[in-house]
Parts: sequence; structure tokens; C-alpha cells
Amino acid sequence: MDVKAYMVEVGKAARKAASVMAAVSTERKNKALLSTIDALNTQRDMLIRENQKDLDQARANKLQPAMVDRLALTPERIDGMIEGLRQVATLDDPIGVINDLKFMPSGIQVGKMRVPLGVIGIIYESRPNVTVEAASLCIKSGNATILRGGSEAIHSNNAIASCIATGLSAAGLPETAVQVISTTDREAVGELITMPEFVDVIVPRGGKGLIERVSRDAKVAVIKHLDGICHAFIDSDADIQKAYDIVLNSKTQRYGTCNTLETLLVDTSIADAVIPGLAERFTAKGVELRGCEKTLEILVGAKEATEEDWSEEYLAPILSIKVVNGMDAAIQHINHYGSHHTDTIITESYTKGREFLTRVDSSSVMINASTRFADGFEYGLGAEIGISTDKIHARGPVGLLGLTSEKFVVFGDGHIRT
Amino acid sequence: MDVKAYMVEVGKAARKAASVMAAVSTERKNKALLSTIDALNTQRDMLIRENQKDLDQARANKLQPAMVDRLALTPERIDGMIEGLRQVATLDDPIGVINDLKFMPSGIQVGKMRVPLGVIGIIYESRPNVTVEAASLCIKSGNATILRGGSEAIHSNNAIASCIATGLSAAGLPETAVQVISTTDREAVGELITMPEFVDVIVPRGGKGLIERVSRDAKVAVIKHLDGICHAFIDSDADIQKAYDIVLNSKTQRYGTCNTLETLLVDTSIADAVIPGLAERFTAKGVELRGCEKTLEILVGAKEATEEDWSEEYLAPILSIKVVNGMDAAIQHINHYGSHHTDTIITESYTKGREFLTRVDSSSVMINASTRFADGFEYGLGAEIGISTDKIHARGPVGLLGLTSEKFVVFGDGHIRT
Repeated sequence: MDVKAYMVEVGKAARKAASVMAAVSTERKNKALLSTIDALNTQRDMLIRENQKDLDQARANKLQPAMVDRLALTPERIDGMIEGLRQVATLDDPIGVINDLKFMPSGIQVGKMRVPLGVIGIIYESRPNVTVEAASLCIKSGNATILRGGSEAIHSNNAIASCIATGLSAAGLPETAVQVISTTDREAVGELITMPEFVDVIVPRGGKGLIERVSRDAKVAVIKHLDGICHAFIDSDADIQKAYDIVLNSKTQRYGTCNTLETLLVDTSIADAVIPGLAERFTAKGVELRGCEKTLEILVGAKEATEEDWSEEYLAPILSIKVVNGMDAAIQHINHYGSHHTDTIITESYTKGREFLTRVDSSSVMINASTRFADGFEYGLGAEIGISTDKIHARGPVGLLGLTSEKFVVFGDGHIRT
Repeated sequence: MDVKAYMVEVGKAARKAASVMAAVSTERKNKALLSTIDALNTQRDMLIRENQKDLDQARANKLQPAMVDRLALTPERIDGMIEGLRQVATLDDPIGVINDLKFMPSGIQVGKMRVPLGVIGIIYESRPNVTVEAASLCIKSGNATILRGGSEAIHSNNAIASCIATGLSAAGLPETAVQVISTTDREAVGELITMPEFVDVIVPRGGKGLIERVSRDAKVAVIKHLDGICHAFIDSDADIQKAYDIVLNSKTQRYGTCNTLETLLVDTSIADAVIPGLAERFTAKGVELRGCEKTLEILVGAKEATEEDWSEEYLAPILSIKVVNGMDAAIQHINHYGSHHTDTIITESYTKGREFLTRVDSSSVMINASTRFADGFEYGLGAEIGISTDKIHARGPVGLLGLTSEKFVVFGDGHIRT
């Protein structure tokens, strides 16, 4: 197979479909989503049968059980995909909205119209339900999409793609608006990320290795999420009960997510009052604590944190703790060691809260709230295609708006420039 | 000189200055701009003396007279720089604005705060006044900037930079918030565009060669402007007088700008009525017309347009004309041959105007207005750092907002996620 030639064909078809999708009514986009639900419902047996092929292969290849589990399409996961489609169908359509339409001194009226980006390439690993999630957001935002799932999920992804194609077709939309790359050849990824003539943006979803590789080699804009090294800072004016609740929730509600707390900073003047109580609660939950020198004076016998700890995303029941001398030191630590993802301050001080909000350079900055809230659903975006740790284009949880751009529209009545 | 080591020092200083600039009050940023005005006024003789060195060198190097002219700092051009600074000082400060602050079902309040991008690298060619323009927009938007002007303007740029440093210093801001690269070694550009740890975005301003080189080699996001192949489409329902006015203004108000008309599309049903009158007016202005086959049936003896003409940015008194069969053909031509910059329809039809606006995939789409309006000042942005033909991040004229991003801010009262 000539992968390059194949990808050019895919790219051309996507570009063509994108020009149709850009001008489609909300009603037809929603019909495509709802018809995909019908197709998934009708094809449940087929989906599970095709998924079984991937599962058999995965077990034969001795994939780790956790990976095999992520790959599995259970009836509940199909229900989840259907519920996701229904939710995206209920979201407001951002496309075509004109904002800030104003008269200018010359007499022309100028505004900004929300438009799709065009063609979005999405590269992801095992979970086949991402196929539906990503496709539904791209359809609703009027984009065409090229999906490249993990090779271990190829049968499942093709099966899901056939249901999406049925849905698009039922709404009179081009089936090529959502294309799943049919080859597992890795060269296809290399082509996908270097075809700016056909692809407007790439969203890599997966491990750090994948994202770094894509970012390094892409010739197309990338909306990416790297580390989530999140901090909580317990200020000297913190309410101690709130500190306990927020820090515990931020760390222990789930260990493996990017918005999980990894480093706790505590103002030196409140350290004695707060660290022992926190340590007790964390120990009860089985969380390992690694402290700075001053922390160890309070938690005698605890493990010492090394320099590496401050920039590690544990994704595990481990928390590093550092006692700092005031908010300024906390902010400097966060901006230096953090990953600009999500950071929270616990304080009752109006002034310090305000300053923390301004000076912490992260995609989500919080006062008296758990870092675990950094999420498209919790932020009211309805759904998210990912969380961006970049500053350009989209920052933080990326919903439908992140898949759009704005163009200027100008209304005149024969106006000329003098 | 070790260029790499030098650029790392510049990058580090910029990153440090950026963290200060991000939290500076509007008043102090404006003070820096107004103090720069004072410095420019005080240092007029020095500026002209330093500029003379560049001019002497340019003439010795036998630069083209047009290039030498662009390089010259006349008293009027210094006045222009001062006026530009004054205007940027009057613009609203976008930084810190919180939008869409809403309560979520969980009880947290979520909004988006406008923040600077961080460090902006700007690469430009001869005109030294760009140094002030670019620096002022970066200061006002709370960014640090690294400026790399043309080597032929190095004395002028250093002289201007010293005035900006005086201005920053008078406002108590770090002088390193605006750095002009002091070496003319081309390796410095290569370093600047591949230091994502120190630079958040690159804005190349100059010829197509420069922009293509920067885009190809950058490891940092690029806000770029390539071609301006702009179209006007005279629809069958056009008002002929408006068509004459708009098309003439779009083409002839200035020939060398990116928003100048390059190709005129005319609906076949109105071609006989409108082309001869237009041709007469263009001929009187000395504009060469190049027509498609059907155009030549009307303008017997005119020059024939080749396939290359449809994708050429003339930047000269030349216009290509194509007769098309309806608006659909016009839109297809624009989306295929155009550069997604600025396109206008002349029509009295409500329905066709609406469809043109939706389907033309360009950064500015107009109805009954001259393409020459596509400009940051005309759009009320106050000033522009450039015009983007990209879709990601910023599209069309880029003003202060294009140099910013938004972060999520979350207000809780001890809220945790359940």
C-alpha cells in the first residue's frame, strides 16, 4: 500500500467535506448525531463482535490487563457513547454566531463570525469510544475530521466509523466528514501531521511519548496537553477545614488524572497547624508523602522529597509537600516547576486571592476549590476534546469553541476607503 | 560571539520580564508608552544621526532606492511613531478582563481571564518604525518581546530601543521587557524561532521568503501573513455604480498592499453591462487587464489571463478578470485560488449576500465594501501587529487581543468534586 498516496486521498476528501460541513444547518448536524445513535443501537451486536476481534488479538499479544480493559466495548460503554452523542446534540451550535458587530467611523459595520477550523486530525490510543467523542464534537462544530486510533483498536474503530457514516448519510452529509484511517501503518501518522494543505489542526490524545513526538514533527498546529503538575497552596490565611477538604479531594478523588494534585505548598506560618492533620488523613488513605526539609521537621521520619519530585507527575498515591515562605515563594515555585495546568490557593484573604489569580500562569487558576474541577464538563463546556497546556489558540479544557475560529465580516453599502 | 549562548540569555531575560509585565497595572504600562514618547522627542537628533549611519551603509551597499527610502527616519516618521505610541496608550487594556463568569451546578464560579501570551518574538525587515509599533503593542498587552529587525537598520533600531528602555525604566518596568537583538548574525533568527522554553509566539513581518522560512523552521507558534490574493465578485444583482466604486477603490487606492484586489469575478449575466465601463475606468488609471476567454469576447484585444494569473498577487496595476456562471462558481474560485485573506461581493440580493458570507473561507468577507478596509485601524482594533491568514489563534488583522490568551479562573468556597 502506498501510504502517502492514500493519505493524500483522505486529505483531499476531508478538505472537500469540510467545505460542505462549514455551511450546514444546526438541524442537519444534530440529525447526523442522533442518526448515529440509532445506528449504534441497531449495530450493538456487530460492535461487540468486531471489538472481540481486537480483544482476542490484544490478549494474544499479551497486552497488559489495564490496556485490554480500556479497549473493551461493553454494553455500558456503548450506552456511554450514546449518551455523549445526545449531549453534544443538545449543545448550542457555535458556528455562524456574529459578535461585536459595530459601526466604524468610515460607515462600514464590522463584526466577527464564528467559523469551523476546517479539517481536524485526531490521534489517539486504545479507547475506541474516543472515536465517537471526537467525531461528534467535530461534526457539531462544522469541521471534517480524520481519526487515527490505536492499531490495537482498528476493528472496533472501523465498526464505530461505519455507524457514524450511516448517521452522516441519514442527514444528507458527506460520509467523508469523518474518516478513520484504515491502515495501521505508522507512516500514516507521519503524513497526517505534515499535510498543512489538508489538515488545519492536530489533536493528539494519549501518553506523553505520543504527544511529544507529534509536537516535534508536526507541520500543522497542534492542540496538545502535556503534563498536569498541579499545586495547592495553603496560605497563612487559609480556613483549615477548607484546606483539608480541598487538598484531600484534589489528591485522592482520582489518582490517574491530569488535574490531580501532585505538590502541596504550605505557608510556613500555618505549617505546624495544618501539616500533621493532613498527614494523618493522607496516611489513612494510603498516600505516600514526600516532604521538604521543613516538612520533615514536622513529619519526623517521613520520606524526603528530591529535586526531581517537584517536577514529577506521579499519577499515583504520592504527594510532595514543600513549606514556603509566603505567597510570593509559592507563586515562583508554581510558575517554575509546574506545568501551567491547574493550581489552587486556599485562603480567606481577598488581597492574596486576587494576586494569586493574576500572577499564576496556568490554564486554570482557582481560589478555595479542588483542582479536580478543571474539566470541560465541570466548566460547562458540555464536552471536551482535550485539555490544552498551550497558550496559543486554546488554553485549558477545549470544547466546541476550541475547534472554531473567527473571521471578520464587513457590511457596507458601496463604501470605499479614502 | 557565541550566538546560541547570547540568545539563551536574551530568552531568559525575556521570560523573567514577562512574569513582571503580566501583572503590571494599566497605568504603568501607559506611563512606559508616554515616557517613550518623551525619550523619542528628546533624542530626535541622536535618532537621525544613528539612522544616517544605516542610510550611508545602505547607499554604499547599493540598496535599491525604495529600500533606502523605507529605511529613512525623517522628522515626520518620528512624529508618526510618537502618534502611534499615543494611540496605543489610549487603547483599552485587555489584560485581566474576566468574561463569562458563571455559576456551575457544582456551585463553583467559572470564568475566563484575559492574559498575555508571555514572550513574543518579532522578525521584520527594513522599516525601523516597526520597532516602536511592535514594542508598544507588546507592552500594552503585558508581554515581553524580542525584536529582530533587518541588519540594514541595526543602528536605527538600537537607537529606538534605547528610547523604549528609557520609557520602561521611567515607569519602573524592566528594560528587558523589550529587547532588540544586538547581533546581525542570521543564526540569531534560527535560535529565536526554536526556543519554545523562552518564546511563546513568533510574528514574522516581511516578504514571503522570510515568512515561509520562519514557518518552515519554527518550533514555536507563528502568527503569519502570507499572500493577499483578494477577490471582488460582481453578482447578477449588483448595483452597477457600487460595483464601479468598490472594484476601482479595491484595486487602485493602493497597489502594493495585501488587501488590494487582484482578481475580479463577474457573473455572466451582468458581464456585458459592467465590464466595458469598468475597463474604461481602469484603462484611464493605467491598470492592465488580463481576462478569461469570455472577458475577451467583451474586451476584444485585451490580454489573456493564464492559469497562473488566478493565483498571483500582483501588488501592481494589473487586474485579472474572470466571468463566472453564478455565485457558486465564484465561491469555488475564491476558495480554490484565493489566499483566504479578503473577498467581497457586490450584490443587492439579501439571500446571496448571506450565503457568500457563510461560504467564503477567508479572514475577511465583505458585502458591498472595498477590500481595502481589511485593516486593524479600519476595524477599530486601534493598531495591528499584522494580518493573519492562519485560522489558528488569530485570523485577519491582529491587534492587542491577538497577543493575549485566556485562562480559566475558578472561585469556590471550599468546593470539592464528588
